[in-house]
Amino acid sequence: MSRIAYVNGQYVFHRVAGVHIEDRGYQFADGVYEVIAVRGGQLVDLGPHFDRLDRSLGALKIAQPMSRGALAVVVRETVRRNLVRDGIVYMQITRGVAPRSHPFPIDAVPAVVVTAKTLAPPSTEIIEKGVRVVTMADIRWGRCDIKSIALLPNILAKQHAIESAAYEAWLVDENGYVTEGSASNAWIVNSDGALVTRDLSTAILGGITRSAVLDACAADGIAVLQGGFTLDEAKNGWEAMITSTTSFVAPVVDIDGSKVGDGRPGPMFKRLRALYMAHLIPR
Amino acid sequence: MSRIAYVNGQYVFHRVAGVHIEDRGYQFADGVYEVIAVRGGQLVDLGPHFDRLDRSLGALKIAQPMSRGALAVVVRETVRRNLVRDGIVYMQITRGVAPRSHPFPIDAVPAVVVTAKTLAPPSTEIIEKGVRVVTMADIRWGRCDIKSIALLPNILAKQHAIESAAYEAWLVDENGYVTEGSASNAWIVNSDGALVTRDLSTAILGGITRSAVLDACAADGIAVLQGGFTLDEAKNGWEAMITSTTSFVAPVVDIDGSKVGDGRPGPMFKRLRALYMAHLIPR
Repeated sequence: MSRIAYVNGQYVFHRVAGVHIEDRGYQFADGVYEVIAVRGGQLVDLGPHFDRLDRSLGALKIAQPMSRGALAVVVRETVRRNLVRDGIVYMQITRGVAPRSHPFPIDAVPAVVVTAKTLAPPSTEIIEKGVRVVTMADIRWGRCDIKSIALLPNILAKQHAIESAAYEAWLVDENGYVTEGSASNAWIVNSDGALVTRDLSTAILGGITRSAVLDACAADGIAVLQGGFTLDEAKNGWEAMITSTTSFVAPVVDIDGSKVGDGRPGPMFKRLRALYMAHLIPR
Repeated sequence: MSRIAYVNGQYVFHRVAGVHIEDRGYQFADGVYEVIAVRGGQLVDLGPHFDRLDRSLGALKIAQPMSRGALAVVVRETVRRNLVRDGIVYMQITRGVAPRSHPFPIDAVPAVVVTAKTLAPPSTEIIEKGVRVVTMADIRWGRCDIKSIALLPNILAKQHAIESAAYEAWLVDENGYVTEGSASNAWIVNSDGALVTRDLSTAILGGITRSAVLDACAADGIAVLQGGFTLDEAKNGWEAMITSTTSFVAPVVDIDGSKVGDGRPGPMFKRLRALYMAHLIPR
């Protein structure tokens, strides 16, 4: 089967799917994106993803390319044409094509690309043995709350993790606090047994999985401190975790070579993962 | 005449020049660029631009797509095919096409796009009356020395300038020092009469025009303090200027609504512009 991509109004073969060289996404990173999980053929948390997309577009003053209903149709059709039961949908919206010049063009039409692919959930090994993270200084810009395609710092961080034989890189701000991972939110159970994650601000992206886990915690009576944590607190804590659309809830058992707790996925991880897996079941 | 672009080994009509939707430049801002002035059909400071391109590629560990000699041939041929006597060449190199995933792909082939167009030099009005700048917090990432296509903060700053009826936005760091403009370097003559610009670091892009002006100053016996200046020093100084490939040396006569000096282009600007215009004459 050939993959199909939606590009600016047409469904085209993925291998020949292109955009113009003067699409501002290509020349200026002038665009935003979302990655949505597909489980059992259903889109997970479509509403929250669309809400965040709206916020990102609004922050950059990029016009809505189409109504939410129309975009949902495109997303579902892309999933359908690629026969995705379990996987992800990727959608990207840029300010469109215009002769290269920094200011916003007056009359550019936003460009829309949607792709979908089958993707395995996190492996049994990740869930049972946990993953390693390494840390590095957070040198990203001051509006990490916008889900923009200006991901160069993120890919450099992820590459650093891979070269360090780690799964993810945690980014540490100038006060010693962990902001988030290169493509995930960061959580710990601290040495007092409290579940902690970073508060929402311009310093982190408000993850949809983060939000779903917070909601599940609230419904299940699990208190969460949204005040952030230092790298030292993480290394001295009982447990550590990451959340993301593709990693779900994954246990972190090693930070910069220091074992977290007893070095194995802990009880809070198991509880949160169970809550999130229940959330993923199509209703 | 139809414009011609060079895209990954072929000269194609600009209006249909495209790249793949999974070019990492489009999905991750994973690429670098250069803009080179063309004067009288000659490329200005080609060597320094290629040197900086090498540094940018090296910092991101993107492979050289071709030899410097071959790239020079492509650049000259693109200028020739577009009949550019006075204007600019734009070249962009990304890590290439690969299935979307943050880490560097093992086997991607760098993508190369080169375009050229005729562009008028800065207008007489700019040179004789000067331009306004507005200032804003510098919220860019920590590696502004890399000339990457992750330009989202820069376009937002330039847009802010345009909406403020200004020509450029100067970015101010947390210590109150001006780093640079959204697409230019910043200079002043301070209240002691000293010519000052920011020192090279990861906080600014080392402009080729900045460098050419510094060289011309050295040859002409003009002392330059490369220690940076605060916004207050700029507002209280005698003169202010910007330098860039497309603006050459341009006089700044108003900062955030405060007149600089007597509000007219000053003698140091005139001297630097004359030196730079001499530098631009093809030899």
